[in-house]
Order: sequence, then structure tokens, then C-alpha cells
Amino acid sequence: MRAGVGSRSGLRLGIGDDCALLGARPGEELAVTTDLSIAGRHFRLDWHTPEAVGHRALARGLSDLAAMGARPVAAFLSLGLPRELISATGRRPGARHNERLWVDRFFDGLLALAAVHKTPLAGGDLAESPIAVADIVLVGAVPRGRALLRSGARPGDSVYVTGSLGGAAAGLERLSALAGTAESAGRKPLKIPAKLDLMLAPHLYPQPRIAQGLWLQRRALATAALDLSDGLSTDLTHLCEESGVAAEVDAAALPVATGASIDQALHGGEDYELLFTASPAARVPSAVAGVPITRIGRIVRRRRGRPALTLITTDGAQPLEPHGWEHFS
Amino acid sequence: MRAGVGSRSGLRLGIGDDCALLGARPGEELAVTTDLSIAGRHFRLDWHTPEAVGHRALARGLSDLAAMGARPVAAFLSLGLPRELISATGRRPGARHNERLWVDRFFDGLLALAAVHKTPLAGGDLAESPIAVADIVLVGAVPRGRALLRSGARPGDSVYVTGSLGGAAAGLERLSALAGTAESAGRKPLKIPAKLDLMLAPHLYPQPRIAQGLWLQRRALATAALDLSDGLSTDLTHLCEESGVAAEVDAAALPVATGASIDQALHGGEDYELLFTASPAARVPSAVAGVPITRIGRIVRRRRGRPALTLITTDGAQPLEPHGWEHFS
Repeated sequence: MRAGVGSRSGLRLGIGDDCALLGARPGEELAVTTDLSIAGRHFRLDWHTPEAVGHRALARGLSDLAAMGARPVAAFLSLGLPRELISATGRRPGARHNERLWVDRFFDGLLALAAVHKTPLAGGDLAESPIAVADIVLVGAVPRGRALLRSGARPGDSVYVTGSLGGAAAGLERLSALAGTAESAGRKPLKIPAKLDLMLAPHLYPQPRIAQGLWLQRRALATAALDLSDGLSTDLTHLCEESGVAAEVDAAALPVATGASIDQALHGGEDYELLFTASPAARVPSAVAGVPITRIGRIVRRRRGRPALTLITTDGAQPLEPHGWEHFS
Repeated sequence: MRAGVGSRSGLRLGIGDDCALLGARPGEELAVTTDLSIAGRHFRLDWHTPEAVGHRALARGLSDLAAMGARPVAAFLSLGLPRELISATGRRPGARHNERLWVDRFFDGLLALAAVHKTPLAGGDLAESPIAVADIVLVGAVPRGRALLRSGARPGDSVYVTGSLGGAAAGLERLSALAGTAESAGRKPLKIPAKLDLMLAPHLYPQPRIAQGLWLQRRALATAALDLSDGLSTDLTHLCEESGVAAEVDAAALPVATGASIDQALHGGEDYELLFTASPAARVPSAVAGVPITRIGRIVRRRRGRPALTLITTDGAQPLEPHGWEHFS
């Protein structure tokens, strides 16, 4: 593993001792999140390139920091991998001599995204494991009392999302179809064409909305926020529960990703966009750092025995049930 | 999962949002460490009780904080478990109706040790997984510039350890023998006698030396320190490499644990005692917070082409090679 140590980032001691040492600026508190990715559940070794697995593992953690409005300080990675992914000697027969190791390509993907967000990999643990598992830990910093929480939405607030919705679910469906075709043709593992299918990008290389989260935090504009990891219907339900409110979603307003269905936009997981609420008086721009911001509905009062979410369509209002996102299981 | 939030500990927001929020006291920096435990490698579901697996996972992380002289602030846990360990419906046929779930007993063990060290479990991730994996993350705090590092040992310094050595390796050997007897008698999984065999305790319930690490840090007494996770020969080699020095170990001085061999004391892993160096002028007491401190050797100048470690016995001096600790593999 490589490590970067810089005073700017707040990382004072990286890989090599019993712990890494981090410093916050005066008046800051630290945000910490962990996300476990397991082969067969969060990714598939026969579907995903190692670079995409590394990118996605880090993206999950960075997205949690974005949802708090925190700047990234450092990442830590615990990696458990089967021997053939770690060492040349354990490689499957027939592998090309000059083929790069899975673990090296995994770090290529992870460190490329880490570089974009100036996030040093400050430590971790590598062990041999019967299955591939990657636990990513992100530490970020945010001025005390300024973190974006899930619990501040109030009736009357508007509901917004960054970017577009359903793209990751549509990409996964496309990947699944490609894998089915490859399997029936006897090609395994799946080879994705060198010119990446654009529809796959939101699934394989989701972009955590760090800049947008920081913008919201600095303007003190959001009353509540979280990131869309489980799908709009599930995550908006979480926000409503934590805030003690309900919400209405305008179907016509949803920024559905190209190639995605309205169902994928409502329930598909892993878009890693930000979902936030703001006072109706707040001036929310139509884009932040090049990413569109769309108003998709409003917060209303919670009523006993009524569903937390309502979907408004041209046919009228209907309950919007949270559909859990189940990855590959 | 349960979480505790207390201003004393520095944890300001626990489980339930995208991240936990931690605050350091003015002038402190934060120490972060992650440790991955994998079934079949770091523990065995058929040998270890769930309570011991939970205790040991947390002990590994706390021990890293102890080695830095940090006070614990919060723990995070990412847990991947097979369905039958998480839910009653997935249980094996014949299991008793009132039998507690594996995962609940795991948390009993983990939270009992967390309570001893006043360390709230502040977040984490739970996923279904084909094999049991537990990644523990510990965040601690230490006054800026005061953390105990591996890199400060100088020729002439004395080498010390806390507690006794080889007890965990001896306990593991005993556990392995018990398992062999049980297996040949057709009893599986292994039942450890209700009155826990005292020889097993150092292996099943290692005690992280938080109080001793804090004591060393506050007195600014140690020139270098780490925790004994891989065994004395391996970890003292790490300390010598990081400090650019060599060391001599007096065999007769080693505090060998009851029932352990000198070989287990030299090479056995997972004792989680502290190994530290101090100036010969430093006044190191014979015990700190009830745990003995023993001088086991001295730091000497490093010489090209000579091994980093020398073992001094009544037969004279011999090279002491680091023997890697390989758990169950």
C-alpha cells in the first residue's frame, strides 16, 4: 500500500506504526464511517474489474462523508483476499505471465479516486481470506456543529437531489445482461469492451458528491441530508424517520438517468447522489460544481397510520413504499 | 448494535446517521487503527465461543491504541456473517429454541471489553457473508506530539515488556489439543469446560494494556513502543527496523507465562503485551496498574550483515530470527 502524509490533509503519521495519527483544525470535529464490501454480495469477481471494485469500495465511504458535508482527511482499508488475487504463485493455470495482480489493479482503481479527492490511504490491514472482502474506513473533518444530519427536515421544506437517479441500477441490469450473453457463449470471466459502455459508468464508477456536500455545509443551506445508497424510496424514508416528518415526491420532476426507468430512479440503489432538504426560502442553485440540483418534492407533516412517502403522478397521489436494495443476493 | 454517546469520550453523534462525529480535546490528535479478523484464519467458529471472538476482535484494536499511548474514544465494527449466525430462521436443525444467536453472544463479548475501557461502539456495518469476518476500527486520542512511536529507540536504551509472554500461544496449543480430543470423540463444536481452563484465558481473553500505554505516554518515558501481536521476535525486529537499531534479549530475563515454553515466549503471537524501550537513566517501576514490567534486554548499534536480534543465553550469544506468527493457516 502507498500512503501520503500531508499537513494540509490532517494526516500526520501514515502506514508503518500501530496507528495512524490525524489532526483536526481548531473548531473541527471528525466524521467517521465504515463500509464493508463482500464478493458475491456487493460485487462479483466475474463481473467487475478489480479497478471498479476498488473505486466502488472507496466511493461508498467518500459518499458518506459527502452526506455529512465533511472534507476527506484519510482513508483506511482492511482487505481480505484469496491467495490467487494477492500473489503470482497462487495464480490460476494459464494466466498470462505479465498479467497484473488483481490486488494491484484494485489499488489502481481505489487510489485513482483517492487522488481526485486528495484523500491519503493512511493504513489498513491485508489478510488472506477464502472470499474477497474490503472494509473501507473514511475519516473526514467538519466545523463543529455544522455537519449535515438526517434529522433536521421540517414540514414545508423542499426536497432536492444532485445528479440523476437510477443510472447505477440501469447499469447493473446492463452488466447482468452482458454477463448472461458471455456465459451462454462460454466466455468467463466477463470481458467489458475496452470502450466502456457509457451506461455502465454510473454503476462501475459512481462519483461521490464531496464538492456538493461541502458547498451545502458551508452555506448552511440544507436542513437534512444523506446519500442515496439504498435507493430514493428507502433513503428518503430514513430521512423522514430521523426528522419525524413525511414527504411527497413529484414523479414528473425526477431526474431519471439516461436509459433508466422511473422504477429504477425510485428504488435503484448505489447512485451515491445526495438527497437533501432546504427551507422554501433558501436559494438553491440549479447546479453546484457542474452537477445539477433538482427539486423533486416537499416535506409534509407526518400522520399516524399514513405512509411516510407519497408519489404524486398525473393520476393523482399514491403511497410510495420503500423497496430495499439487495445488491446481488 | 448499541451505542453510547458521551461528551467525556469525545463521541458526539453515534449510530444512525451517515457518519459518527468525534471531537478531540484541544491539543490532541487522533489515532486510528483497523484490524480484520477472518473465520478460519484469526478464529475458528468450531473452537472459539462467540464471546471470545467478539472480545478478541476488540482487544486487537484496543491494543494498537495502547501501543500509541492513546485513550480510546470510539470503536466501529464492520461485521459480515453467515445467515445462520444472524437470524433464528437460518439456524441449523436441532438448535435449541431458546439458544441465543451467535451475533448477540459476539456483541456480549465485545461490549463487555468495551465497557471495561469505556469505549462506545459508535457505528459500523452488518452484512450477510459466506464466511464470518469482523473488521474493528478504533479511534483514540493523544496529546499532539506525544504518541508512542516505533522509531525512537537508541543504542543503550533498555528493552521492557508488560505482563508475561507466550501465554496466548500456549493457550492456543491447549485449545487445539482439546479440539482434537473432542473431534476424535465425535463432539463438535468444541465445548470448553464451564470452569474456564486458566491456561486458555491469555488466548481467549487477552487484556489490552491501555492503562500501561497511557502511563508511558504521560510520563514521556518510552523512546519507542509497540504491541506484541506477531510475537516478540517479529515485533522487536519491527521496532529495530523502524528505529534503525539492533537489540539483545536476555533469555533468562523473559517473563515466560505459566505453562508456556521459552519458544512460545520468543515467537508466539497475540499476547498483546506492550514492548517498549527507555533510556537507561529512566526510572521504570516494576509494575504499572497491577501489571508487571520486566527489563528483557537492551538496544545496541546496528551492524551491516548482522541480524537485528541476538539472544543471550548461558551458552553465549546466538542470532534470534523473527518467526512469523501465522494464526491457523
